[in-house]
Amino acid sequence: MPVAEISIIPIGTGSTSLSDFVAEAVKVISKSGLKYELTAMGTNVEGTLAEILSLTQEVHQAALRMGAQRVLTTVKIDDRKDKELTLKGKVEAVRKKIA
Amino acid sequence: MPVAEISIIPIGTGSTSLSDFVAEAVKVISKSGLKYELTAMGTNVEGTLAEILSLTQEVHQAALRMGAQRVLTTVKIDDRKDKELTLKGKVEAVRKKIA
Amino acid sequence: MPVAEISIIPIGTGSTSLSDFVAEAVKVISKSGLKYELTAMGTNVEGTLAEILSLTQEVHQAALRMGAQRVLTTVKIDDRKDKELTLKGKVEAVRKKIA
Amino acid sequence: MPVAEISIIPIGTGSTSLSDFVAEAVKVISKSGLKYELTAMGTNVEGTLAEILSLTQEVHQAALRMGAQRVLTTVKIDDRKDKELTLKGKVEAVRKKIA
Repeated sequence: MPVAEISIIPIGTGSTSLSDFVAEAVKVISKSGLKYELTAMGTNVEGTLAEILSLTQEVHQAALRMGAQRVLTTVKIDDRKDKELTLKGKVEAVRKKIA
Repeated sequence: MPVAEISIIPIGTGSTSLSDFVAEAVKVISKSGLKYELTAMGTNVEGTLAEILSLTQEVHQAALRMGAQRVLTTVKIDDRKDKELTLKGKVEAVRKKIA
Repeated sequence: MPVAEISIIPIGTGSTSLSDFVAEAVKVISKSGLKYELTAMGTNVEGTLAEILSLTQEVHQAALRMGAQRVLTTVKIDDRKDKELTLKGKVEAVRKKIA
Repeated sequence: MPVAEISIIPIGTGSTSLSDFVAEAVKVISKSGLKYELTAMGTNVEGTLAEILSLTQEVHQAALRMGAQRVLTTVKIDDRKDKELTLKGKVEAVRKKIA
C-alpha cells in the first residue's frame, strides 16, 4: 500500500492565509476513511494508488468549489513492493535508527 | 485545462541512471495523446484533471512493471479557471515580460 | 521566520530502504538546533531562510558522504511576512477550523 | 555539477497570474550567469550546490521585494557523483532511448 503527501495551494484569493483551504482538504480526506496525518507542510495519507489519486482529485475540486480561481495541487506517492509501507512504520523505522 | 508536471524516481534499482525509467514514462505519456514536454527535471503535460491523474497512475505502474521495487511518483497540477492554461502559453507569458 | 520541508532521496544504492539516509539527515538537522518534525514524507524545519538553505546543503552532503552516488534533495520553503509562521502554529490553525 | 528546478509561488497577491513573479525570478537567474531553461512548471538551472542554493535565496527574496506577503519556494536538486549532469544531457539521454 502506498503512502502519499497531498498539498493544495489556492492562488489569487487575496489572502495570505491557506488554513481555510487546508481545513476543507482535511475534511475531504477524513471523509474518505483513509488514514491520514496533518503536517505543517502537507497532509500524508495511506491508501491504494487508485484511492490516493481519486482523493487528490476530490481535494483539488473542493479547493475550486471554495472559490479559488487557480489551484496548485501536488501529490507525492511512495510505493514499495517488497515491504508494506505505513505512515507510522516509515517514521518508526527512522526513529529506531536515530535512537 | 490544467497543466502538470509528472516525475518518477525508481528506488533500489542499483543503478544511478534514471533514463530507462523516464524513457518508458515518456512512451506512456506519448501514447496517451496528451501534449507533453520533456524537461531535465520532469515531464510537463496538458490535459483534463482526470486525464492527468489517470496518466500518473499509468506512468507509476509502468515503472513498477519495469522492475523497480520502490517508486516515488510526483505530480504537480496547475489548474486555472479564469483563463486557459497551456504549456506553451505559460512559458510565452513569462518570455514577453522578460523581453 | 519561514518553515520548510526537506526531503532526501538516494539513488543507485541498490536498496529499497531509505531509512538509513533519512536517519542521518535527521541527525544533521537535530545538531543544527533548529526546531524540526519528522513526518512520513519529509522533515519539516523552522528557521531563517539562510539557516534552512545552509541545513539543506549539509543534509545533501551528508547523503553523499554516506555513499550515495546520486542524491535528489528537495526543499520547499513557506515564508510569510504578515504573521509569524511556526510548525505548530500552521497545524493548529487548521485543526481549529476543522473542529 | 548538480542540476535543479526552482519554482516560486506568491500567495495572497489577489491575482491569479504568476508571470510577473516568474519573469522577475528568471531575470535574477539570468543575471547569475548559470545556464537555465524556463519550463511551464519551473525553471531548471545548472550549477554547483552552493550556487543553486544561493540563487534560490535571491529568487525567493526577489519575490518578497516585489510585494508578495507570502512566498512558497521549492528547489529540487539532482546531484550525481559518477557522471556529469547537464540540463541538455539529461534530456538527450532520454530522447536517445525513446528513438
